[in-house]
Amino acid sequence: MAVLGKDPRCSVARSLEVLGEKWTLLVVREAFYGATRFSDFQDRLGIARDVLAARLSTLVEFGVLERRAYRESGERERTEYVLTDAGRELHVVLAALIQWGDAHRPTGFGPAVEHRDRGTGDLLHVGFVTADGREVAQSDVLAVSGPGAE
Amino acid sequence: MAVLGKDPRCSVARSLEVLGEKWTLLVVREAFYGATRFSDFQDRLGIARDVLAARLSTLVEFGVLERRAYRESGERERTEYVLTDAGRELHVVLAALIQWGDAHRPTGFGPAVEHRDRGTGDLLHVGFVTADGREVAQSDVLAVSGPGAE
Repeated sequence: MAVLGKDPRCSVARSLEVLGEKWTLLVVREAFYGATRFSDFQDRLGIARDVLAARLSTLVEFGVLERRAYRESGERERTEYVLTDAGRELHVVLAALIQWGDAHRPTGFGPAVEHRDRGTGDLLHVGFVTADGREVAQSDVLAVSGPGAE
Repeated sequence: MAVLGKDPRCSVARSLEVLGEKWTLLVVREAFYGATRFSDFQDRLGIARDVLAARLSTLVEFGVLERRAYRESGERERTEYVLTDAGRELHVVLAALIQWGDAHRPTGFGPAVEHRDRGTGDLLHVGFVTADGREVAQSDVLAVSGPGAE
């Protein structure tokens, strides 16, 4: 896929090359929710087979999902799709999208998904944090040019 | 736009209704970087005029950008596009995408953009945090059904 926009060094554009096509992030969402088989994704999303096949191939090509062979007794070998480490790191991207949707496109029923600390049950949100794990308010965050800026 | 997938209560899908079309998040990125005029967005992105006009309209319709009139001396009145509060809250979504792109689709030149604490200059990342501002490791984050789940 071509790099969108004029700046090939922009990581938003580079992420969207993998994730920006219609359906792709929803396929990733279903992988987080436990879908592994082609039919799982298709049943849950109601997506055309050829589109789903293309999205799964892109996600495998770019290392978000990996293909594994599995066989249930008496059946032919099939392929399942499992999140890689890189894929699991998309959790915070999905959670940031969920947070924005819950705040600005609310359904009226409250959040469908909440993120909680496994140990304490504390409700979590997505934010900017320092290396030592202290949250910084969005109004105090500055975007500056890094070493890879042109 | 129709709700993608079968679950209209999913906030990923509801966010992507606004943000999921090709170019939309790059238009938002340019707004963060200071673009306000139609020609700013067009020059920076190299995007077709009709596509840009459609994306800007969607972002205005859903409250991410607002139109303002401005006039430079001797010229006709023109429209500029300015991020709303809801639009500014997309900063963490863009930063999460940047972080993933820098980690998993590196350019070899290092990050083009860094996020830093305005006061201390500390380098920031995007993560899961508790209400009292303590980061929780991704491996300790659990996604659970909230009140709006079906």
